[in-house]
This record gives sequence, C-alpha cells and structure tokens, in this order.
Amino acid sequence: MANEPSRIPVGIIGVSGYSGMELARLLAGHPRFALALAVSDKWAGDTVGDRLPFSGPSATVRIRPQAESATAMTGLELVFLCTPAEASLELAGQALAAGVRVVDLSGAFRLAMDEYPRWYGFAHPRADLLEIACYAMPEAGSSSDIRQAKLVSNPGCYATASTLATLALLRGGVIAKEGIVIDAKSGMTGAGRKASEEMSFTELDGDFRAYKVLKHQHTPEIERTLALAGAGALRVTFTPYYLPLRRGILATVYGRLLPGKTGADAAAAIKAFVADRPFLRATKPEGVRLHAVVGTNRVLMAADADPERGVAIAFAAIDNLVKGAAGQAVQNANLMFGLAETAGLELLGGTAP
Amino acid sequence: MANEPSRIPVGIIGVSGYSGMELARLLAGHPRFALALAVSDKWAGDTVGDRLPFSGPSATVRIRPQAESATAMTGLELVFLCTPAEASLELAGQALAAGVRVVDLSGAFRLAMDEYPRWYGFAHPRADLLEIACYAMPEAGSSSDIRQAKLVSNPGCYATASTLATLALLRGGVIAKEGIVIDAKSGMTGAGRKASEEMSFTELDGDFRAYKVLKHQHTPEIERTLALAGAGALRVTFTPYYLPLRRGILATVYGRLLPGKTGADAAAAIKAFVADRPFLRATKPEGVRLHAVVGTNRVLMAADADPERGVAIAFAAIDNLVKGAAGQAVQNANLMFGLAETAGLELLGGTAP
Amino acid sequence: MANEPSRIPVGIIGVSGYSGMELARLLAGHPRFALALAVSDKWAGDTVGDRLPFSGPSATVRIRPQAESATAMTGLELVFLCTPAEASLELAGQALAAGVRVVDLSGAFRLAMDEYPRWYGFAHPRADLLEIACYAMPEAGSSSDIRQAKLVSNPGCYATASTLATLALLRGGVIAKEGIVIDAKSGMTGAGRKASEEMSFTELDGDFRAYKVLKHQHTPEIERTLALAGAGALRVTFTPYYLPLRRGILATVYGRLLPGKTGADAAAAIKAFVADRPFLRATKPEGVRLHAVVGTNRVLMAADADPERGVAIAFAAIDNLVKGAAGQAVQNANLMFGLAETAGLELLGGTAP
Amino acid sequence: MANEPSRIPVGIIGVSGYSGMELARLLAGHPRFALALAVSDKWAGDTVGDRLPFSGPSATVRIRPQAESATAMTGLELVFLCTPAEASLELAGQALAAGVRVVDLSGAFRLAMDEYPRWYGFAHPRADLLEIACYAMPEAGSSSDIRQAKLVSNPGCYATASTLATLALLRGGVIAKEGIVIDAKSGMTGAGRKASEEMSFTELDGDFRAYKVLKHQHTPEIERTLALAGAGALRVTFTPYYLPLRRGILATVYGRLLPGKTGADAAAAIKAFVADRPFLRATKPEGVRLHAVVGTNRVLMAADADPERGVAIAFAAIDNLVKGAAGQAVQNANLMFGLAETAGLELLGGTAP
Repeated sequence: MANEPSRIPVGIIGVSGYSGMELARLLAGHPRFALALAVSDKWAGDTVGDRLPFSGPSATVRIRPQAESATAMTGLELVFLCTPAEASLELAGQALAAGVRVVDLSGAFRLAMDEYPRWYGFAHPRADLLEIACYAMPEAGSSSDIRQAKLVSNPGCYATASTLATLALLRGGVIAKEGIVIDAKSGMTGAGRKASEEMSFTELDGDFRAYKVLKHQHTPEIERTLALAGAGALRVTFTPYYLPLRRGILATVYGRLLPGKTGADAAAAIKAFVADRPFLRATKPEGVRLHAVVGTNRVLMAADADPERGVAIAFAAIDNLVKGAAGQAVQNANLMFGLAETAGLELLGGTAP
Repeated sequence: MANEPSRIPVGIIGVSGYSGMELARLLAGHPRFALALAVSDKWAGDTVGDRLPFSGPSATVRIRPQAESATAMTGLELVFLCTPAEASLELAGQALAAGVRVVDLSGAFRLAMDEYPRWYGFAHPRADLLEIACYAMPEAGSSSDIRQAKLVSNPGCYATASTLATLALLRGGVIAKEGIVIDAKSGMTGAGRKASEEMSFTELDGDFRAYKVLKHQHTPEIERTLALAGAGALRVTFTPYYLPLRRGILATVYGRLLPGKTGADAAAAIKAFVADRPFLRATKPEGVRLHAVVGTNRVLMAADADPERGVAIAFAAIDNLVKGAAGQAVQNANLMFGLAETAGLELLGGTAP
Repeated sequence: MANEPSRIPVGIIGVSGYSGMELARLLAGHPRFALALAVSDKWAGDTVGDRLPFSGPSATVRIRPQAESATAMTGLELVFLCTPAEASLELAGQALAAGVRVVDLSGAFRLAMDEYPRWYGFAHPRADLLEIACYAMPEAGSSSDIRQAKLVSNPGCYATASTLATLALLRGGVIAKEGIVIDAKSGMTGAGRKASEEMSFTELDGDFRAYKVLKHQHTPEIERTLALAGAGALRVTFTPYYLPLRRGILATVYGRLLPGKTGADAAAAIKAFVADRPFLRATKPEGVRLHAVVGTNRVLMAADADPERGVAIAFAAIDNLVKGAAGQAVQNANLMFGLAETAGLELLGGTAP
Repeated sequence: MANEPSRIPVGIIGVSGYSGMELARLLAGHPRFALALAVSDKWAGDTVGDRLPFSGPSATVRIRPQAESATAMTGLELVFLCTPAEASLELAGQALAAGVRVVDLSGAFRLAMDEYPRWYGFAHPRADLLEIACYAMPEAGSSSDIRQAKLVSNPGCYATASTLATLALLRGGVIAKEGIVIDAKSGMTGAGRKASEEMSFTELDGDFRAYKVLKHQHTPEIERTLALAGAGALRVTFTPYYLPLRRGILATVYGRLLPGKTGADAAAAIKAFVADRPFLRATKPEGVRLHAVVGTNRVLMAADADPERGVAIAFAAIDNLVKGAAGQAVQNANLMFGLAETAGLELLGGTAP
C-alpha cells in the first residue's frame, strides 16, 4: 500500500437526509475520495458510524453542526451539498470563495434564471453562480464540461430517468419532438425525510396517486436538458406518482412514432444509446424493474413501438437515491477529478430482494 | 318482516378465487339476492363461513365441487361465473339451457369473434353465445339492454377504469380520438390467485414494472367499449403495471387537447360525466387515490389540461375486485332483476387505511 | 318501513382520527343507531360523505368544530369519544352533565387512580368519573354491568387481544399465574394519525422493532382486567412491536404449563372460551392470521403446549380499529341500549386480501 | 497490482436462490476470494452479470447446470453449497473427495444424528460427514475449530439471532437455564425462492402469522449450539413468524431473571458479549431494528429486565441473507483460509431505507 495515491478530502453537508446518508455509504467504499467532513444539525456530535451501518475511516468522522459548515470546509477539495435549494444557494457561494469545488444535489442551479419564479417559487438571487454552474448528466451531455466545472448541478431523480429514455428515442430518430408524454413513478425516499401526516406509513401503504399534476419542477428540467443535449426546443408532459415502496423510479415515455418506424427501431435506439455508457443497460420492457436497479448506479432501459397506433414507448428505471442523487454525484465528482467514471460505483450490489 | 319480498336465489361458481370471495362478501349483505349455491373444488365440503369471515345465512351454504355445477344450478335465477374463460364458455351454455341467467366475470364474452385468436389465443367456439351476450358497463352503455340480457359479460377491471376516464374526455369534446394513451397501474389481486414464483411476495414487494407491453387483452376491450358507447372507431395505447399493493387500479389517460380547450373544460367534462351516476365521483387529480375507493364500488375521477403542451390528462381509480369485478357484477345483476342499481352496494365502507 | 323502531341519535367526537373514521363506517350501516353529530376541527365544515367513502344518511351529517362539542351533544343519547385522554376527561364530564351516555375510546378511564402517574404520566383529575366508569370488554367481564353504565371505558387494542388469549388459558386451568409473557405485534394505525418522521412510510416500510419495552401502558390494563375477570392478582410481561402493515394485532401469550397438561388441553381451553361468544372463533395456531380478522369484529384464537418444555402458547388476532376500538365500542353501545350484541357488526366482511 | 496476493478460487452451487445470489454479491467485492464457478439449472448458460446487477470479473462467470457440479469443482479451493439439504448431502461428499473444502448453507450438517428423523423428517445417511462437520457460528464457539475444518456447517438464520441473544444473557449470569422463550420474526426471503400460493404477494402483504408452532427445526439447533457454547443442556421454546417484508430477522428472548439481577445487569451482559466481536453491536431495545442491519453482516443487540416481574428480555436483529446465510458463510470462509474475519464484509452498507 506504500504507493497508494493520496486520498482527496471531501465533505457532505446534510448527511442526515436520505441522499446524504447514501452518499456517505458510497464514499465509505470509494477508492480515492476520503470523507473528511460531515455536517448535520440533527446528528451533530455523533460519529458517522454511530448513525450509519458501516465501518472504516469514514465511520470515525465526527458530525458537525450546520453553523460550522463554512469554516469547516477549509482544506477540502470538494463538498457535496445535500441541502434544500435555499441553503445550497448560500453554501455554494461560501465553498467556491474558499476554493472548494461543489456538487450541489438540490434544484438551486438546475434551471435558467427566468424559470425559477414559476417552478420553484422564488426569484433566483445568484445569477453569478447560475452562470458558472454546470448541469451534469454525463450520459446526456458533454463530460468535458464537467471536468472543468467548479460548481456542478446534479440532476433531479425524475429528470435523470425521464431524460435518458426520451433522448434515446429522439437520438434514434424514432419519435417526433411533439407530444411527448412522461408518466413517472417514484418510491417514497424521493419525497425526502420529514415529519408529515401525508407521508405517514398508514396514509401511503396500499395507496397510489399522482401529485403536482402538470406542475412538477422537473418538467422544465427535462425540457432544458433535452435542449442542451441537442434535441432542440420541445415540450414534454410530465406526471409524477408516489409508489408504496422506498427506492426506485420507473419512467415511461410515450412518443409519436415517425412514419416507417417499428418496434425493432425503438429497441435498436435503446441499444445504440446504452453502448459504451458504463451505467446504462438495455433489456426488454418487462425487464425494466426496480429490483434490478435498487442499490446500484445503473439505468435499465427498453423500448417498443406499435405502428398501428403510431406510438413508441420507452422505459427507464433507476434507484432515485443512487443514479438519481448520490451515485450520480459521485460519478460527476469522479469526472471532475479525472478519475475513472465508475470509481466506487462498480461493485455496488443491490439488496433487492 | 312479514311482507319482505322473497329472496332471489343466486349462485357463485369459483367462490375461492379473489373475485368469487369478494362476490360472496357482497351477496352476504345484499337485501334481495340470496346465495344458494357456491362452487369450488378447492373448498368443497366446507361452508362459506368456514372460509370467509362473515356470518348470516350465506355463511351456512356448503361449498360443492365443480363437477356438480351443472346439476346444482337448477332452480337458481342467476349464476355468477368467476371462472377462467375456458370454463365460462362451457358453464354459460349449461346455465342458459337450464333457464338460469348468467353474469360472467371472465373474458369469454367481451370481444368480437375475430379478436379472440390475437388477444386471447383461442378461436371462440360459441358464436351463438357471443351473439346474445350483453357487455355491461352501466356508465358507458345502455342499461336498458342489461335489463333484458340473459347473458351478461362483466367488464375487465382495467377496461372499466380506462374506458370511463377516456369516455368522459371524449364526450366532453376535450380531446381528439387520435393518439389516446392509457397508463394503468393495478394491485396484485388483479393477477388472480395462483402459485407462481413471479407472483411471490419477495419478487413483488418493493418492485414495480410493466407487463404485456402493447399486448394486453384489455386494449381491444377498451376500444370496442368506446365504439359501442358512441365514440366511433379509435385506437388506444394501453400499458398495465403491477403495483406492490393488493387492491386498486389507477388509470391515467392522456389525450390530444382540442384547440381552444383548457383545464377547466377537462374538469367540467368529468363533472358532467359523473352527474346522476351513483357510483361516479369527481375530485381533483391529486385526490384520485386508491385508499378512497378500496372496498367500495366507486369510481373516483379527475381531469386537467395543459394548453401550452396540447394535452389533457384524466385519472380514474377503482377497486379492481369491486367495481372492477364483483361489485360491477352485482350492479349488473341489480339491473337485470329490476332492483335499485345501488342495492347492496351503497354502504360498503372501505377499510383503507 | 312504517313500524321501524326509531333511531337512537349518537355522536362521534374526533371523527377524523382512525378510530373515529372506522366508527363512522360502522354506524353508517348500523340498524338502530343514527349518526347525529360528528366533530373534528380538521374536517369542520365538510360533510361526513365528503371525507369518507360511503353513502346514506350518515354521509350528510355536517362536521362541527371541537369548540361546539359541548353544546352540540344536547339531545343525543350517546356520544363516542375518539379523543386523547386529556380531552376525554373533560368531554366525558360535559356529556354526563347533559344526560348523554358515553363510550370513551381513550385511556382516560381504564386504570385505577394510583396507576395513572406511572403509566400515563399524569395524576388523574376526576376520581368521581373514574368511580362510575365501567371498563367494558364483554368477553372478559360481566355484560350486565355494561347495560347499566353511563360511562363506558372501551378497552385498549393490545389489551383486548392479550387479555382474551391469557384468560382462555387461565380459565382452562392450563397455565400458572406466574411468569406470563405477552409478545404483541400491531399494525401502524394503532399509532394513530399524526405527523412524525418516525411514523413516515420510508422509516417503517421494511422495518420491524419493539417500542416502549417494559413500559407500555397496556401492561397494567391487562393485569387489572385479568384480576377483574377473576384471575386474581398477577403480573404479565408485555412487549409491543410495530408491524409494517396498517391493520391488525397478533398477540402471543406464553405461560408455564401446569403439571399433567398437554397441547390438547390448551386447545380445549380455547374452544371452551369461545363457545357462545359471538365474535370469538377457535382455529389452529397457524390459522390465527391478520387477513382473517381485518375489517371484522372477530377475535381469532388458538393454543398449543409443549409438555417437554413446560410451556403453553396461545395466539389471538384482532383488527385493532374494529374489535380493538370502534367495533368493540359499538358492541358495548349495543349492550348499553339493550340491542343485540352483534347489531351492525355481523355482516362486516373484511377486505383482506 | 503486481504483488497482489493470488486469488483463492471458490464456487457457488445454487446461485439462483436468494442465499446464492447474496453470496455472489459478497464475493464480487471480496478482496481475496475469486468466483470461479457458479451453478444453477435455472440460469445455466447465462453469465452471472446477466442475472445479477454488478460488474467486475465475477460478472463474467458463465453459469453451469447442476449436472456438471461434481466435475466443475475440480481445482477450486472451496465450494459454497446453497442447496437443499438432500442435495448438500451428496455434493459435500463429492467436493471433499475432490479435495475441495465446503461451506454448506443447508441444514444437512447442523444437528446430531439422532435428531434428523424428528426435525428434518429423514434419517441422516452420512454419519461420516456429520462426524467431521464443524458447526460454525464464530461468536458462539471456537474459531480455532473453524480454521481446521474441511466441512463447515453454516448456521440457520433464526438460530444465529436467537442463539446469540440467549447466550449473552446466559453468559452474563442474568437468567436461569429453565423456561427460555424465543419469539422470532422473519422477512420472507427466509422462506426461499419458490412457486407457492401461500407465498404470493396477495396472501402475505398486510398479513402476519406464526408457523411451524412448537415444531421448527431451528429449535434443536439453538439448543445444541447453546450446549456446545458451554451453556449446558437446556430446552428453549421457539416460535417463528412471517413478517411482510423481504429481509431481516428480529428475535426476542425471554428468560427468568436470576435473583438480585436488574435491567442494568442485562444491558451489561450484552455490552460484555459484543466486546471484541467485530460484527456485534449493542444498543437500546428500541434501537434493535431491521433497517439498521439489512445489507450488513451485523448483529444488533440489546437487553433489559423487570425485577418486579422476574423477567429479562433480549433482542437481536440480523439480515437473514447476510449474517443469517451468505455473510456468515463468507465470515467462516475467511477464518478457514486465515484471512481477516471481516474481509469483504466491512464496507457493506445497507440500502435501508
């Protein structure tokens, strides 16, 4: 072990939320990043190992209160912000000022300036940061941008699954840009960790319903990401639902089949899209299931079409806390530091079942 | 109680399946039907009360083996067939020959003759029965036909929720006939009662996936029912999913919004559709949840639209074993015998949560 | 219907909690009680039918705010208090003063005066009410007392299942009074309806744990009820757990087998205990399952013993919201008004599965 | 990597069962074992990576049919048998004859010769193998025996949790040997992977019940292991239940408190027991929850006592597929090959929630 390269010190602000916990798990097994700072008011004073079930050096890190974030970041190479958008706006500025690179997991830097009032309900106060933020979904955009970025905006969970499935059909020339419909179902960790009667076990077990119908803030994020990925200006209809399970998103994309195209073309579009992308896997539509992705950074994808009805259908499944949050954050951090894209993300085995 | 009208003797063939069990529950509380025959090879010899948790006269009925079905039907006014399509084809003929009216809950009489090979995998052997069968979804068709019918074909569970939501938008003049997409999620009782590794708790808990993609037999049933209901010839794309819960279907319908129409028009179309239909209820999209319909014969419906994206969206939720099977069967039987449409179906309270 | 006996007007204070909702469901189908008052701050202004999925006269009752409880009770024959113990202490006094009989579902009147500080954390302020309160578990005590009671204290859910299983073994002379252990598992509706991170779906789904170990307030309730039922002074060890499901309690009782006794004696003790009690049913140990009682007022019971190990084991399962709360409340109310004990409780069919 | 020690080639027979799948996951991340053989009739012809969601060298192993097991084992250092007891009896002999060491995860070598007819229903055919088999629960016995063993019998899942909790109380001198009661609840992966109506989602979701009451084959295994661990001859009463979740066992142990002992003594006994055992952790009773162990090889333990009632209570929670099967198998294999006991088992993070 004498010549092992030195570890890159990183921090997590907001370690007691579900994304923060998952990120701590991933970093504990990462070959190059070393957890040097963990922040949470709720857990302040305990060690990471007191709260999360793993061993090793990460487990010995003592958790610090939010008020110490700014000073405690000094000396880190990178900080992951697992905080609400309002907190991220402030912390990102502090980190960059201290020379610390940032991966932000909130929605603070995902949209264009003028979209914030409508979709997030506030006017964005930091045009300067939004300007330099790099929205980073490696399979949809250019990873070279990510390498240079000081401030990476990590994509939303729904946006990740939805954008990749849609992009595969668009890139394959299978569907029209008009009339794209995305029906996306998510496990409950996607709603975060909070006290709410609506989120109680009794209210959710055995239930299923849509929410934020025609109003979800991932709608413009998907549209913008598709545009950035070269699909041009388009509009998508996006409907999210709560599934009575903890982890996983399955997004279904319906598009208008272009003339002459078939189910085989749809399937081929998926195969072409996943090629050479380490976390993407093609399968058949019935094989896109949450059990096959939970606990991993994978995206499982499939597509088919019905020429008689003029429609193509694509499916993508992810673990919302891994590829939809903490895993993609590590993937982006790997790119930022010139590491292998899959470092620390390869041997994750799911625990499903 | 001296002048209480006499009870109408009815039977259930296939009482040990989930639809049969639910039907026994509903009939036990029905004011006019009396369970006089229950058939199941699996439970033969026991009483209904040995197997199902309710009391009263129904509970004392002794369950008979399948082989005795034909002879045991004599003297009944009506028999409910909760049997696979193959068995229903035979039993329906026997019942009618014995002067017993039939409500069949299988797919044996739901489609046109020429659709059976493709969607059910067999050539329909009884053109004579198919000819006289009355497909009976009271809210979609004419209840006068049902009153006269000797053989009622009870709709499929997905078809019930999907057709009603689609029909509301079409009747309201909100959407075009082209490009209708239905994304429908069902609880696991919809898959019936059988031994299968795929249906095991471990494989399904925490999982979610589509099945029979572009191939489900309720596709032509929905198309045919919409045509019979006056919507004209049209094609729908239908995708079913397994939800990790026991009861309930939520169907989401996407249609192309007609020019000038708005979300208010979509909501108004639902309100107009549910008016004067005792089991239909309008609410807002986020209110269409399974908990609100489980254990009842209700259909909860809502709609909205996004003119900017040119799409309307409608939701319908039902209990797949009640309105999607046994409850609708009782509703149809009520109409067949000139009873109140809601007899025995009004005071059902769900047990959710 | 000309000669139908007049309805007995009753009220529910706290209709928006899980017990209150279930009680409204049961009363909607009751042959003699008529819901005349429903109180809840949360739902004030809506009708019962706006909030709960059933029809009929009960559904039209408009819900009133808590502040109007006292005045609105005037003219009722009976009020069900589905309120926290603190509120019940006050409301019970108001109701009795207005000549309204009371069934209280809280713990306000379940223990002896001197037990309140230790187990409920407060000194009981109303010795006068506690004096006249009748703790009413019809299968454990004397129903003649219940008939006369002005103030009925409805048993706790764990206490109901635990007491009945223990009493069956004790009455049958199968076990010693010393060393009784009760290990009881409950669905999450037992924890009530509240906003709490600990009660969130994500924290509970897939989890299982004990709580209030050696400290649960049903411990003295079980001991006291056994003593009142003639078992003499004894101590039980009681451990409650949260099950990841909504409804149902399964209590397991371990006792020291008396010399010469066998598994057959244990089973016989159950059979003797359930005889002539309309809601009790005997089965084999593996048959005591939650699905068989959910939605009903039944208690499913079984027992066995291992002479080699000197132990007897008994099981009891109930629906915590029915026999463990609202159903037993109706059963008690039936007795208070001289109605059939099973009125309105017989044809309940569960919806499990 | 030039000086990396060479990998030890190992095989899994029965890779498509839940224990086999979990073992494949653990071996994929193990620093010294290399998966060189995977056998399953069901998956024969596919690679491990086609079936399980991880990458790396293990994923490229092609799965072979059962019939090739004996020949394919040649050259391995160790084979894990994730097969039914009947198959293990045969395969263990073949492996040992070929010079391959064995860790058997079935019940084939867990009991004494004369206990097989009663508890497993067959007369044990291989006294020779039973003679040399080393029952290996490292925290309960002597790990020096394990180091020498050619044939290791891996403990049962219930037996692991139950034995450790009981042993802690006995070693701590807190409870008597008489009258020990164990009430143990397991997730459904414990029932294995098979087609069965009883194991279907609809039958199990929302349900809870005991099974094999007073008849479970882990009863003598616990008794024997306690005896081997120095607790002397004793009898335990053991009751298993199915929990509606996938992974995890929580065992509750009740014992008769010895005179003068207190809750503090019980807690101290746990603390002493977990000291220096890398996979054991002490917490408070309410902290022993399945979420905290799922996906890890940990045992979470706690205890308390009630001197007034003369009882001590201890809890232990494990992941039945990890510490209860595959994880303990790797732990044992580590010891057999002189590796660190925690190799490949340390950085497992659960995915709960």
